[in-house]
Amino acid sequence: MTTTPQNIDLLIDSRWIAAVDPDIVLNNHAVAIDNGRILAVLPTGEARARFNPDKQVSLADHILIPGLINLHTHAAMSLMRGLADDLPLMDWLQNHIWPAEAAHMSAQFVYDGTRLACAEMLKGGITCFNDMYFFPEAAAAAASEYGMRAMLGITALEFPTPYASDADDYLNKGLTVREKWLHNPQIGFCLAPHAPYTVSDATFERILTLSEQLNLPVHCHIHETRHEIDESLRRYKCRPLDRLRELGQLGPNFIGVHAVQINEHELKLLAETGSNVAHCPSSNLKLASGFAPVAQMRQLGINVGLGTDSAASNNRLDLFGEMRLASLLAKGLTGDASALPAHEILRMATLNAANALGLGQEIGSITPGKSADLCAVDLGSMEMRPCFDPVSHLINVAGRECVSHVWVAGKCCVDHKTLPGIDQNHLESAVALWQNSLEVRRQACI
Amino acid sequence: MTTTPQNIDLLIDSRWIAAVDPDIVLNNHAVAIDNGRILAVLPTGEARARFNPDKQVSLADHILIPGLINLHTHAAMSLMRGLADDLPLMDWLQNHIWPAEAAHMSAQFVYDGTRLACAEMLKGGITCFNDMYFFPEAAAAAASEYGMRAMLGITALEFPTPYASDADDYLNKGLTVREKWLHNPQIGFCLAPHAPYTVSDATFERILTLSEQLNLPVHCHIHETRHEIDESLRRYKCRPLDRLRELGQLGPNFIGVHAVQINEHELKLLAETGSNVAHCPSSNLKLASGFAPVAQMRQLGINVGLGTDSAASNNRLDLFGEMRLASLLAKGLTGDASALPAHEILRMATLNAANALGLGQEIGSITPGKSADLCAVDLGSMEMRPCFDPVSHLINVAGRECVSHVWVAGKCCVDHKTLPGIDQNHLESAVALWQNSLEVRRQACI
Repeated sequence: MTTTPQNIDLLIDSRWIAAVDPDIVLNNHAVAIDNGRILAVLPTGEARARFNPDKQVSLADHILIPGLINLHTHAAMSLMRGLADDLPLMDWLQNHIWPAEAAHMSAQFVYDGTRLACAEMLKGGITCFNDMYFFPEAAAAAASEYGMRAMLGITALEFPTPYASDADDYLNKGLTVREKWLHNPQIGFCLAPHAPYTVSDATFERILTLSEQLNLPVHCHIHETRHEIDESLRRYKCRPLDRLRELGQLGPNFIGVHAVQINEHELKLLAETGSNVAHCPSSNLKLASGFAPVAQMRQLGINVGLGTDSAASNNRLDLFGEMRLASLLAKGLTGDASALPAHEILRMATLNAANALGLGQEIGSITPGKSADLCAVDLGSMEMRPCFDPVSHLINVAGRECVSHVWVAGKCCVDHKTLPGIDQNHLESAVALWQNSLEVRRQACI
Repeated sequence: MTTTPQNIDLLIDSRWIAAVDPDIVLNNHAVAIDNGRILAVLPTGEARARFNPDKQVSLADHILIPGLINLHTHAAMSLMRGLADDLPLMDWLQNHIWPAEAAHMSAQFVYDGTRLACAEMLKGGITCFNDMYFFPEAAAAAASEYGMRAMLGITALEFPTPYASDADDYLNKGLTVREKWLHNPQIGFCLAPHAPYTVSDATFERILTLSEQLNLPVHCHIHETRHEIDESLRRYKCRPLDRLRELGQLGPNFIGVHAVQINEHELKLLAETGSNVAHCPSSNLKLASGFAPVAQMRQLGINVGLGTDSAASNNRLDLFGEMRLASLLAKGLTGDASALPAHEILRMATLNAANALGLGQEIGSITPGKSADLCAVDLGSMEMRPCFDPVSHLINVAGRECVSHVWVAGKCCVDHKTLPGIDQNHLESAVALWQNSLEVRRQACI
């Protein structure tokens, strides 16, 4: 007895598939996709008999993984990539980044910078980013134009920038933008108090209310530097995480970024409250902030995702680099070569991040019912050979340059390493203009 | 008055040139090359008037740097890339790598594995590697076929392998191979006692004599793990470096690999004797050996180069990755974001390594009179933009995938990211056969 094949939009078959949930690697399987969602994951032969796809993609030497999720970035800062290097956080922020932002930041800056970041992230297999910056309407327009999924920050801090005058102004503007994008399933929002050292108790209280009313995650830098801890002790007579606990901020909605300068008590606090951590190892080292104790966090059951931070402090928006570095650092710091094995690292860059953003039912794994946010990594080049374990290769051998295809909600955003439908010259021209104006100011500073 | 242009083999003009010695970045300059050597470095316009090149290459968006030098690898082990991961050094060596070598190692294995390594290294901008393995005649044939420069190990250890029966047998075989290759200016040799824990005092003594007679560098693993230190204390009643000093091994001819488990006294010993260090950060972390105190070494004036170690413990032969990681780790470990700035990292991967190998007059910088060992890195892709400082971008943004051209002694070994004259299918088939036999054994072990 034969049944009529079912019409579907897209069938992708792949040499390997790392589903993440469940944590298995499938050989010669296919993903059936319809209306932007994963319909089934099944052996390729069976899939070809059962489905009649509009389009079919065959990935002979590839591993198909869930689209990577960048749990912390400031996308538009890509325009300041490498503007000031080899400097500690506070010098870097106060004498280079903040003055450059004061002089240049605008909706156009954010639109162009976020487009540049989206181009880089998509080509590197990232399908979703959690952003903290200004002019979120411009970031939303850029992400939407490039077909990316984004969680944008409704950023808050107490001092004025070209975007807003005070914390209430930041929040009100961000909430207005959120209203406008409510209809778009790929654009979501987090409340984003910048950091304990730039946000007042009153603002944190308003953010807590908003988070509960609107069910929004809270995205906040925490315990990045020793300086931040010392400042908090001086001003608030307690360390930042104790203050945030007092203010009721910690919990499953809370994403603490960095968590480098952190003690045992604070790790337990994060674990007990079900708070999430965004680990940004390159940025932490480049700014000499230190080493986050990630293996210990995972042992305590803290949900940890990975972030690139901005291209001004990294200087790549490259989760392959962060996966490899997180894996190496965990082994070096614990003295245990089995710490954070490859499968767990992949989960951090996908499902853990999805869970932190409250999107665990929607993205983060290749599971029927979820959105088809997928990334194909070519393991066929000479540099990848031989291959005994494709997930080990993904973390230890592959780089973002191996990403060949990316889909977001079933739509192809990277096709054979290029961005279909994107006018690259237009983007290059915009970036060149910003480089010129930033360079003029930079030369005047040196 | 006009003069007749001088006929030369090759003129390469480039948007930027990082000469390394002197430590300057030139804009829109050209390198004139004749008979495999650098004749002049001068402004492009001037070069076009002065020279009449057989061949001309224009690199509009590139930085031209000296070919990178991999100061420590076991090239042929590329065939065991990712064979066993997430394991500590001794378990990894004793239960996985050494048994696999005992079962498979042969001249053919070394020839095929070294070809694979050369393909990977060349495409990643590496023009010279310092190797420690077996069957050096097979490695020499492979390196020579691919046009690479190599310093091959006259390896010594006390236990038998498929290559040799005891230390004297290893040394005698290696010395015979050296005699055969004396005529080849691109193939040199180091004496390579494997490590203090695998080599006896008597063998170290013979090596010292040979090193002095033949003026050969000595290439040896040192202070990689705590286990190695403990073993030495038990067997020799002293730590390995104290033993090596007693044996007269330390000095400007000595290249100590890893130097992770090292104290202040030992750092001073390396500095006072003018010994060199090969820093292999990825391997040290992946095997959970620890963090080498490189910033401290540099402050003491120790000459430090960079190595990938083997693809079995890295799992990439990628000096761009090692440069970036060495830079990040130095900042994180010292808490000083200005530690090991980009220019110094580039010097470690080029001139410092050349000096360690006794080749400082021949390679390691873009200096008239030296061999034309060069690497062109394309900074023009969207992921590299904007670019305010090309040397910062080289370390912090670029990856090996940006390497477009490589020359060794003026001969083009990578042309637009491909290896001219190399039969890639032939290499792929050989690697696939080895993968099959290794896989059969691996499955039997699991």
